[in-house]
Amino acid sequence: MDDKLMLMIPGPTPVPETALLAMAKHPIGHRSGDFSKIMAEVTENLKWLHQTKNDVLILASSGTGAMEAGIINFLSPGDRVLCGCNGKFGDRWAEVAEAYGLQVEKITAEWGQALDTEQFRQHLEADKDKQIKAVILTHSETSTGVLNDIETINSHVKAHGEALIIVDAVTSLGAVNLPIDELGLDVVGSGSQKGYMIPPGLAFVSVGAKAWTAYETAKLPRYYLDLGKYRKDGAKNTTPFTPPVNLFFALQATLRMMQAEGLENIFARHERLKNATRSAVKALGLPLLGPDTVASPAVTAVAPPPEVEAEKVRAIMKKRFDIALAGGQDHLKGKIFRIGHLGFVCDRDILSAIAALEASLGELGYKSFTPGAGVTAASKVLIES
Amino acid sequence: MDDKLMLMIPGPTPVPETALLAMAKHPIGHRSGDFSKIMAEVTENLKWLHQTKNDVLILASSGTGAMEAGIINFLSPGDRVLCGCNGKFGDRWAEVAEAYGLQVEKITAEWGQALDTEQFRQHLEADKDKQIKAVILTHSETSTGVLNDIETINSHVKAHGEALIIVDAVTSLGAVNLPIDELGLDVVGSGSQKGYMIPPGLAFVSVGAKAWTAYETAKLPRYYLDLGKYRKDGAKNTTPFTPPVNLFFALQATLRMMQAEGLENIFARHERLKNATRSAVKALGLPLLGPDTVASPAVTAVAPPPEVEAEKVRAIMKKRFDIALAGGQDHLKGKIFRIGHLGFVCDRDILSAIAALEASLGELGYKSFTPGAGVTAASKVLIES
Repeated sequence: MDDKLMLMIPGPTPVPETALLAMAKHPIGHRSGDFSKIMAEVTENLKWLHQTKNDVLILASSGTGAMEAGIINFLSPGDRVLCGCNGKFGDRWAEVAEAYGLQVEKITAEWGQALDTEQFRQHLEADKDKQIKAVILTHSETSTGVLNDIETINSHVKAHGEALIIVDAVTSLGAVNLPIDELGLDVVGSGSQKGYMIPPGLAFVSVGAKAWTAYETAKLPRYYLDLGKYRKDGAKNTTPFTPPVNLFFALQATLRMMQAEGLENIFARHERLKNATRSAVKALGLPLLGPDTVASPAVTAVAPPPEVEAEKVRAIMKKRFDIALAGGQDHLKGKIFRIGHLGFVCDRDILSAIAALEASLGELGYKSFTPGAGVTAASKVLIES
Repeated sequence: MDDKLMLMIPGPTPVPETALLAMAKHPIGHRSGDFSKIMAEVTENLKWLHQTKNDVLILASSGTGAMEAGIINFLSPGDRVLCGCNGKFGDRWAEVAEAYGLQVEKITAEWGQALDTEQFRQHLEADKDKQIKAVILTHSETSTGVLNDIETINSHVKAHGEALIIVDAVTSLGAVNLPIDELGLDVVGSGSQKGYMIPPGLAFVSVGAKAWTAYETAKLPRYYLDLGKYRKDGAKNTTPFTPPVNLFFALQATLRMMQAEGLENIFARHERLKNATRSAVKALGLPLLGPDTVASPAVTAVAPPPEVEAEKVRAIMKKRFDIALAGGQDHLKGKIFRIGHLGFVCDRDILSAIAALEASLGELGYKSFTPGAGVTAASKVLIES
């Protein structure tokens, strides 16, 4: 049905009407006092959301632009970096680092599993000469629905003392607790079409004092992604390059909504949506890609048996129920489907998605579950938590 | 008055309601067939607007991102480039080239004057060893309202034979005739908040065959701005990184409007708006920054005498008449004001702006004109052309 699409993908995520209408306002000049007021407000609220007093800089780019900025501003050609690779995005940051001539050492795990924190410890402890300049990793691996253990890996980075920690929090920021100042995370990148509840087009990088010190001597070339420019102009509530002003209107609206909901409630809601989704999928007899212990509150990856083709599930969900699910990426293409429950998603949305999933599985001839079992399991989690 | 702001700045430019409402639609997944259809349509229409069969690639960035991509994808460290510098943006492209370790030779002209095409001829003819790999210049210099003579400079580049021509058409594309294929322009960058009539957040780069050949051996590092990735995915009507889907909705709407108006009519309208504005400013006895012969159809820079403070004119225009004019940049700050007449601007807008300007000048005590002279002069041009 036209205009009835329900996004259950890990980005773009659903956008509240308040933000859509804010975005439809006529643009204003970005060098005006009115824009500076918005810039001041959203910057302040972004710091609240990031749980940090560090700079939180706003770029006109996708999350990849933010992560590239987070890497290239603080390193020099030939610098040694450790990259955690257990999904498409971990792999991407290794590619970025390689594109800029960094010496990349990958710590890999199977897609669907979390990174082994011990391997980080070993590599960092073995680096007596302090040649490792940065550890780059993805908090919530969107491609697999796995949440890596930032806290433990960060403790090993802190014990090393020299390396920066550069974190992709694209699908974790605003969904799961990531206390930047408490952990001392040096660089954290994210994107607007995720927990922020607005469309794609803005990206965010938080940068701490240690990273700014590294910036002073870092020699990789950059201009549009030069974070020093954003910091300098940000201090005057302006931007070095023309900002997407209408996305700022939307961001202003959703950050206010997030403040009204409160951080603890936002995190609890995502946890509840995740648990309900996983419980329902299990009740339907479908295998989950990764274990519960490392499940991301942003997205759940389902790896159905061969008789239930993932792409067919997605097609029926879209055609019959106007629900968009995500597919698998790279070698998982066609092998999994992913249910996003990130951002502007409420309990009802999970019930809708699971009910539609039951019906779609039925249409595909998959009968290995008691009709209603998924919805019942989800309801139980939602009501009881 | 709230919500009554009229943008007469050279970007963001006014946005039609059709585009604003398109943008307020709920986002769709960027990996969906529905998005690919939009991507196919806008790409086709962008080629029409660019008057080219070359690739026209769409980035999530400001115009600076597009120009940086246009430079760093086709050159290697140490390459010699000529940069035309007669305003803020020409200077910026020289800065980008220097940031990436290129050997930059600047051809400068006073702000408000056009670049001297003869200097390009001399430099290019003197380069017998064909060491100049690119000529980078700005077509419409937004900071001064000057249109550089691309046609002549391009003929010298073509006579050289080796160098690429990389053009900033940020405020000229969609305002003035720039036949990319007819001229054989290798790389042309632009931004959405200008002639495209949508808010900032998208940028465009057209890339021709000779530039793609240079790409094969170009060694400057890049990832987010790697145009090869956009070309590869663009061929499948998708994007390498999450695109700002709502801005695509708006772009789809305005490109249809532009097709309905027709290229010749669009160019004629901008020419008429420019002539009306300049004629009115002269009738008010105010000096224009640059000569008529090189005036940009996008923006008119006015350099008032000391007794008429440019910033005061802007303040009154804003406060009393809800019209935003642009100020001067860098060393022209406080010395000029700029009237944008780019994109979604009609004849009535010029009359409104000039009438408000007359009233504002009156309020400032400037009396060196016959009341009504500006409006009369503008009307005459608008009616007669």
